[in-house]
Amino acid sequence: MKLVHDPVHGGIELDDFAVKLVDTPEFQRLRRITQLGLAFLVYPSARHTRFEHSLGTFHIARLIRGRNPEIDEGVVYAALLHDLGHYPFSHTLECLFPRHEENTRWLIRHGEIGDVLKERFSLSELRRLLSHPLVSGDIDSDRMDYLVRDAYYTGVAYGIVDLERLVRNLRWDGERLVLEEKGIMAGQNLLLARSMMYPTVYQHHTVRIASAMLCKAAELEGISPRDVRLMDEVDLIARLRGSEKPEVRELIGAIETRRLYKRVIWSGEELDGEELEELKIELENEFGHLALLDYPSKPRFEERNAFVRLGGEVKRLSEVSPLVEALVKVKESYWWWGVYARGDVLNEVRAFVSKNLK
Amino acid sequence: MKLVHDPVHGGIELDDFAVKLVDTPEFQRLRRITQLGLAFLVYPSARHTRFEHSLGTFHIARLIRGRNPEIDEGVVYAALLHDLGHYPFSHTLECLFPRHEENTRWLIRHGEIGDVLKERFSLSELRRLLSHPLVSGDIDSDRMDYLVRDAYYTGVAYGIVDLERLVRNLRWDGERLVLEEKGIMAGQNLLLARSMMYPTVYQHHTVRIASAMLCKAAELEGISPRDVRLMDEVDLIARLRGSEKPEVRELIGAIETRRLYKRVIWSGEELDGEELEELKIELENEFGHLALLDYPSKPRFEERNAFVRLGGEVKRLSEVSPLVEALVKVKESYWWWGVYARGDVLNEVRAFVSKNLK
Amino acid sequence: MKLVHDPVHGGIELDDFAVKLVDTPEFQRLRRITQLGLAFLVYPSARHTRFEHSLGTFHIARLIRGRNPEIDEGVVYAALLHDLGHYPFSHTLECLFPRHEENTRWLIRHGEIGDVLKERFSLSELRRLLSHPLVSGDIDSDRMDYLVRDAYYTGVAYGIVDLERLVRNLRWDGERLVLEEKGIMAGQNLLLARSMMYPTVYQHHTVRIASAMLCKAAELEGISPRDVRLMDEVDLIARLRGSEKPEVRELIGAIETRRLYKRVIWSGEELDGEELEELKIELENEFGHLALLDYPSKPRFEERNAFVRLGGEVKRLSEVSPLVEALVKVKESYWWWGVYARGDVLNEVRAFVSKNLK
Amino acid sequence: MKLVHDPVHGGIELDDFAVKLVDTPEFQRLRRITQLGLAFLVYPSARHTRFEHSLGTFHIARLIRGRNPEIDEGVVYAALLHDLGHYPFSHTLECLFPRHEENTRWLIRHGEIGDVLKERFSLSELRRLLSHPLVSGDIDSDRMDYLVRDAYYTGVAYGIVDLERLVRNLRWDGERLVLEEKGIMAGQNLLLARSMMYPTVYQHHTVRIASAMLCKAAELEGISPRDVRLMDEVDLIARLRGSEKPEVRELIGAIETRRLYKRVIWSGEELDGEELEELKIELENEFGHLALLDYPSKPRFEERNAFVRLGGEVKRLSEVSPLVEALVKVKESYWWWGVYARGDVLNEVRAFVSKNLK
Repeated sequence: MKLVHDPVHGGIELDDFAVKLVDTPEFQRLRRITQLGLAFLVYPSARHTRFEHSLGTFHIARLIRGRNPEIDEGVVYAALLHDLGHYPFSHTLECLFPRHEENTRWLIRHGEIGDVLKERFSLSELRRLLSHPLVSGDIDSDRMDYLVRDAYYTGVAYGIVDLERLVRNLRWDGERLVLEEKGIMAGQNLLLARSMMYPTVYQHHTVRIASAMLCKAAELEGISPRDVRLMDEVDLIARLRGSEKPEVRELIGAIETRRLYKRVIWSGEELDGEELEELKIELENEFGHLALLDYPSKPRFEERNAFVRLGGEVKRLSEVSPLVEALVKVKESYWWWGVYARGDVLNEVRAFVSKNLK
Repeated sequence: MKLVHDPVHGGIELDDFAVKLVDTPEFQRLRRITQLGLAFLVYPSARHTRFEHSLGTFHIARLIRGRNPEIDEGVVYAALLHDLGHYPFSHTLECLFPRHEENTRWLIRHGEIGDVLKERFSLSELRRLLSHPLVSGDIDSDRMDYLVRDAYYTGVAYGIVDLERLVRNLRWDGERLVLEEKGIMAGQNLLLARSMMYPTVYQHHTVRIASAMLCKAAELEGISPRDVRLMDEVDLIARLRGSEKPEVRELIGAIETRRLYKRVIWSGEELDGEELEELKIELENEFGHLALLDYPSKPRFEERNAFVRLGGEVKRLSEVSPLVEALVKVKESYWWWGVYARGDVLNEVRAFVSKNLK
Repeated sequence: MKLVHDPVHGGIELDDFAVKLVDTPEFQRLRRITQLGLAFLVYPSARHTRFEHSLGTFHIARLIRGRNPEIDEGVVYAALLHDLGHYPFSHTLECLFPRHEENTRWLIRHGEIGDVLKERFSLSELRRLLSHPLVSGDIDSDRMDYLVRDAYYTGVAYGIVDLERLVRNLRWDGERLVLEEKGIMAGQNLLLARSMMYPTVYQHHTVRIASAMLCKAAELEGISPRDVRLMDEVDLIARLRGSEKPEVRELIGAIETRRLYKRVIWSGEELDGEELEELKIELENEFGHLALLDYPSKPRFEERNAFVRLGGEVKRLSEVSPLVEALVKVKESYWWWGVYARGDVLNEVRAFVSKNLK
Repeated sequence: MKLVHDPVHGGIELDDFAVKLVDTPEFQRLRRITQLGLAFLVYPSARHTRFEHSLGTFHIARLIRGRNPEIDEGVVYAALLHDLGHYPFSHTLECLFPRHEENTRWLIRHGEIGDVLKERFSLSELRRLLSHPLVSGDIDSDRMDYLVRDAYYTGVAYGIVDLERLVRNLRWDGERLVLEEKGIMAGQNLLLARSMMYPTVYQHHTVRIASAMLCKAAELEGISPRDVRLMDEVDLIARLRGSEKPEVRELIGAIETRRLYKRVIWSGEELDGEELEELKIELENEFGHLALLDYPSKPRFEERNAFVRLGGEVKRLSEVSPLVEALVKVKESYWWWGVYARGDVLNEVRAFVSKNLK
């Protein structure tokens, strides 16, 4: 048993098997993957990494399993490893590469960590465990950790979550985690917290701009999905700094000295597929790396899979809480796309975009 | 200048005039008026008083006025005095007596504090100041203090509010406080926080039961609106303990030893006026002080007077935020009435009520 | 099992036997005994009571016993009840009456709580348990709770203590609690914290003055040791307010409106017994209740009974830590006695004292 | 004016000149210099950087200057820049290179930031400002920030400091910062806090081991004082990872995967110069990079330059506080040197050392 100090949860106890997993190079690499990507450009103190978050997720999963021993023991290790495959700067590069979940599976198959895992689990078993509701549900140990942790490191109060009430009131009914009545308010609060962290931190426009710049740099540098699998932030930055292409060096330099592109336009109205494709190509032809289109996919319909037990009956939380019901609408209102450009071509890009968009 | 230590705000500075006001018997009496009434029966640590809350409200009002010097200076003293008229256990006895705002005005007219005030303000002026949006609006210094303070003392995280962003982003436009764009999320969060504190703390069913018992005791004891004006909690409890009526002594004894009545029925469906009156009379005839009907008035339509500036235009926050829009619905869902009875007559009362209510 | 919410420890779990103890009138009375006496006159937010503190002490004792199951189970209930006998305003009236520990034993012998206890323990057994090092040692569950709690409620940061490290590193060796090496710093910190809370909060001069006034009022009112046994703060204040003696009414009124006596003299130099007695009598003869002598007993030599294990050997913490060694000296430097007087006779008292003291 | 969010201080306001300084490449580089070097190997959450710390130091300096306007305005910018010259992993490489203060001066002379500075200050002026007691004294804005910040990020409570009382009670008397009486306890607490953070965090033995490994790697790689001047952590790690020397690659790999050397011996007894030199050379001859001697210089006599005003007289804090007086002794007791070795040669190194040391 080993004890790790953590300002969010106090002491986190790691059993021997968890220590073995943590001691692999793949897991230690998470120390060099920032939890919130480039958000530190807005919240300088947000320098926490996927490493601490993974330990915290494990910790919460173990607490909940402690009260629900019917949950498969392997789930807590899945919680530990659920973010193993994150690329440098977390979600930032998912514009270019497959989602990190896929890379997690790849690393487990090919890394040293796989050998450790095999002592206890088959890889297909682990794959199944990774999609357990305690690891990836609407109210899961992942969210419970990251909301509180991100609030702690950014100083943005909205992410505060009543961990204790959630842990005490989540019951495993054989296929779902169900919130008992005394935990409903805490569950609602978690979903509201998440919704408020989105525009304030995760999708802050400056973070979006810097992320688009980093994506472009990685794209221009020709980093391949294979290259990125094992990279940490040192690898990525060193590679971009040392690039042969001046545009790449310029982009990474601008990010590092916080001389960021500016917003030319932003809009909450969707473009149709063709229009979008055209805009992208035209912008690139006309301005190259000096203008960037950032068009994220629309948020999927979510937050519908939190269940509560009220008066003996299991219901969706959104049926019981008008606020959770309202979250779907909220999500749409937070979605937007944008075009960003280097300061010196701002006006030209603006003119170009307004001419090309009706 | 005097400095008061406060765990919520750090140091609170009181100027000389504020010190004079605080040093009156009427203001010192607030030290013996619990902020959350009988909530300490559920949250034992909630022992804070209207005294600290009043200082905190003053503090926040002064910070906001510091950034909006066009606001009348008197407003900060109105903030200090806004709760002067609270009865013992705060809102609890408002079932029997006029709302505390009326008593505030009476105390200012008749108390020593009025003499201090007259050095600077006419009483009609102060009356006007007490309804200033910074003292009693939807996003005002009162709420900013009590939400954070109640969260701190109960340990219920839902009341946490981003005071700094609110203070920085509230602008006085001559007739209203308007939230600048960077404060919108913090404003939304305040209203959500308040909505979650309602069922969790302020309207917790155990608190409602104990409050109904205290109201009944005060009613049976024949405490008059005139008696209650200057009472503090020592006066009230000593009077009830020393009552000549055994029912009164029984009720206060039961509250103090936490042997509370139980819920016979509770319902979110309104009764019509006649039905309600009848039930009340019949219960009283049949069971006297052993059964209590608790039927609060429905929440008024609220939270519509928070204003924000978005893209140069002033709008209602509820237009901009689907979550705030949903709060009206939420409020209704939190409203309920109940009948409570002493443990030994629970079944009889239950039978009686279900017979008398169709 | 019952769960009590507490902002300091989160949820405190009470087992059925603890619930039974808590539900007695003697224990519920602790809700009306302020933890820090009259300290709220300086730190208005310090309104917490012996009730919460007792629950917190129980909670910590149970955590430590959870890791040291050889400790007698009864100790955790002794922790719950250790402060049962406190008089109104906690230590304040110990100037007049026997220490509260004696009253605790009396209440257990004569109260309803004794009947509950007898289900599990003989009273002599409980008496023994009350002096267990986990309940009253240098590093015990009592101090661990009150330092953190008092820091929380006053906002004075010095009382912060690393509860988790202490809980994890205290080992019962059959007769003593011994701190393992990893907990030494936390143990040292607890003793330092306590030493800094003394002058800042517990012995703050304004608190000392108000306390001396309350003692005098109770003395003049002729409250007997028998009267005080079961009193809570409502009883005491109501009695003093309703006194037939105008001096008593004046004193309690002055405390309640914070019109306190002023310091005439204060000194760290001891008086010899005769000198002291004389001064006391003369002051009383000359000024009656208008001048008060406050001469606390010197601090006993303490903080020598914290043990640590270092390199396999058990040592006193004071041998290992030069800072703890220095605490004895510190304590002396914090001791002082004083004479206080009502504002209008301040000068006369000052002249009188300086004439009578060489 | 610009507002930066910070979880420790809330909002930090930067005036236009501060923004200009922050926007230089030299200052932005601090985002890639970890505040606590390799301490994250023990406290994984300690990922904060010199960037946030510098902003925080500026913030506190400005607050104190706000109450002491006679302090030269330039001091607050000196506070902002005081750590500009830190090398990758902060103090870690000071075993090889000149102290960071020297590099701060070099960067100011040669960097873009010097051009910005020259708008307002001559460089010799700035040099003087950097040694102002508000920037580098015993109770200065640097310590006030880092203690609280390090406590926040590590979760080690000992670093908590009462910033508000310090800020309110520091007075500039023309040549020194003097603590007013009400701030003495807070000042004492700061020095105690610092003393407890030393063994717990800053000099934790695991951190010392990893630091010795990194020093050796940098030494073997032949990184010159000139190379290191502008390096950030990406540069350093990339260089070591890509080294042509297998020992260098091995060392950095071992640090990054947390496969650290073990302690062979540690001792608080000084070696004489010759003995030390001999041991160093012999170890190196015998074991090369597999055994490391870590012999820090003894702590200088410090904490003697905090001044307080007591009863109108200025004194040293150590005269007034027996605990501060004891700190000198404490410091000695925390000093130790050690020899570390790779796991597979541990026994051989142990035998060798014990043979060579009498």
